[in-house]
Amino acid sequence: MATDYSSPEQRVRELGIVVPDYANPPYGERYGTMKGFHREGRTVTLSGMTPEARDGVKLYPGRVGDTVTVEQGYQAARKAAISVLGLMRYAVGSLDEVDAIVNTLCFVVTSMDFSDVNLVTNGAADLFLEVFGPEVGRSTSAGIGVMSLSGGNCFEMWTTIQSKSAVGEA
Amino acid sequence: MATDYSSPEQRVRELGIVVPDYANPPYGERYGTMKGFHREGRTVTLSGMTPEARDGVKLYPGRVGDTVTVEQGYQAARKAAISVLGLMRYAVGSLDEVDAIVNTLCFVVTSMDFSDVNLVTNGAADLFLEVFGPEVGRSTSAGIGVMSLSGGNCFEMWTTIQSKSAVGEA
Amino acid sequence: MATDYSSPEQRVRELGIVVPDYANPPYGERYGTMKGFHREGRTVTLSGMTPEARDGVKLYPGRVGDTVTVEQGYQAARKAAISVLGLMRYAVGSLDEVDAIVNTLCFVVTSMDFSDVNLVTNGAADLFLEVFGPEVGRSTSAGIGVMSLSGGNCFEMWTTIQSKSAVGEA
Repeated sequence: MATDYSSPEQRVRELGIVVPDYANPPYGERYGTMKGFHREGRTVTLSGMTPEARDGVKLYPGRVGDTVTVEQGYQAARKAAISVLGLMRYAVGSLDEVDAIVNTLCFVVTSMDFSDVNLVTNGAADLFLEVFGPEVGRSTSAGIGVMSLSGGNCFEMWTTIQSKSAVGEA
Repeated sequence: MATDYSSPEQRVRELGIVVPDYANPPYGERYGTMKGFHREGRTVTLSGMTPEARDGVKLYPGRVGDTVTVEQGYQAARKAAISVLGLMRYAVGSLDEVDAIVNTLCFVVTSMDFSDVNLVTNGAADLFLEVFGPEVGRSTSAGIGVMSLSGGNCFEMWTTIQSKSAVGEA
Repeated sequence: MATDYSSPEQRVRELGIVVPDYANPPYGERYGTMKGFHREGRTVTLSGMTPEARDGVKLYPGRVGDTVTVEQGYQAARKAAISVLGLMRYAVGSLDEVDAIVNTLCFVVTSMDFSDVNLVTNGAADLFLEVFGPEVGRSTSAGIGVMSLSGGNCFEMWTTIQSKSAVGEA
């Protein structure tokens, strides 16, 4: 029987995924200089997200190809994507309100001789497929190996989504 | 006599540019986790594109300033941009449907001491100018020297365009 | 008494910030291949901006964590953000026309062992807060440590804003 992706909220419960709450306190207050999302019409731009929890605990900080393995990098990307689910809920109220993932721009801290960037970013892409299915969960994407990320995190993703209903139009 | 840019499809024929077909099989199926484009209204977001052909053959993989020369990097950027033309056709049917290039974000794998990133990204920018002319072909842009890209490619570009007609509006 | 952010143009005068003029000659002409902004509806995409003046003079070129200190990187980011104010004026006529900062994607050239990327990008974020206040000045953001940037600059930012009025809609 085919998996039912009609309710991503139902899917995250089935999968046992614990999505962090970014509504209370509102995401971005810790930094003061940023906001968690920007919504215009049906387009919702989300802030960059790392595999760092709200309490500051990081999953696998370091450099893939050196102090972090590919599998650890994959898990870090998956954790960041789960946090992005929390940003989506914060921005549009429910994962069931997500109509499409417009794009994901993924940054991975790598060593000079590591280039399997896609094997790391798949951790985020696979998570979106598991939760939203192939129709909604696939995104346009680019994966970039970089020098460093804030706090020593090994992964950061920048995501734009489209919601089913429009808010804030002129 | 001034070059006629009224039909970019005519221009690519005049220039003898061979644009890859990304409609058959549809781009993204190879990976399963991504899609080639996202279209909302007149805004079309395209997936990141490298100088890698659909059969996996890469043009000048490596690191600019080390194993790849500036001229080779320029040619790699040009080849990626030609592939982006293929994504544009796949997304909106014809290059003649492109109203504007909104932005190009270009990533170049460089050595520590190479900073002429723009001399490489010009390979993509010049190609768009040749095909679309200065009115349509110029884009807002940023060029970034990075650590690594998937598959050892030396260049990747992420492009957003605007089409003449709108599709998919609520 | 609370600071009045109702007119960002008034704020930049109060703060004594000298904003460069990108309207004359129009930004992008120096390069020929790029444009300063793209406007569609209320969304305005701006070109990447570095701490390099129109005459080519750069503020603190080099690598943060090596030849550039964190405080110098912060000042470079602040200078780039001031130039972005110039691009905003060029694009929408006045800073008072800015309704929101949609996103800022900030790139910092760092050494292998430097990861306080956010301490550098704060130079841009703080400037936007000073000029626009917390309602308008906060943006969704991501900060990325990279290998290199054109011309040896240590910072580049890519900004999208939303204007109060819409132009160019179909």
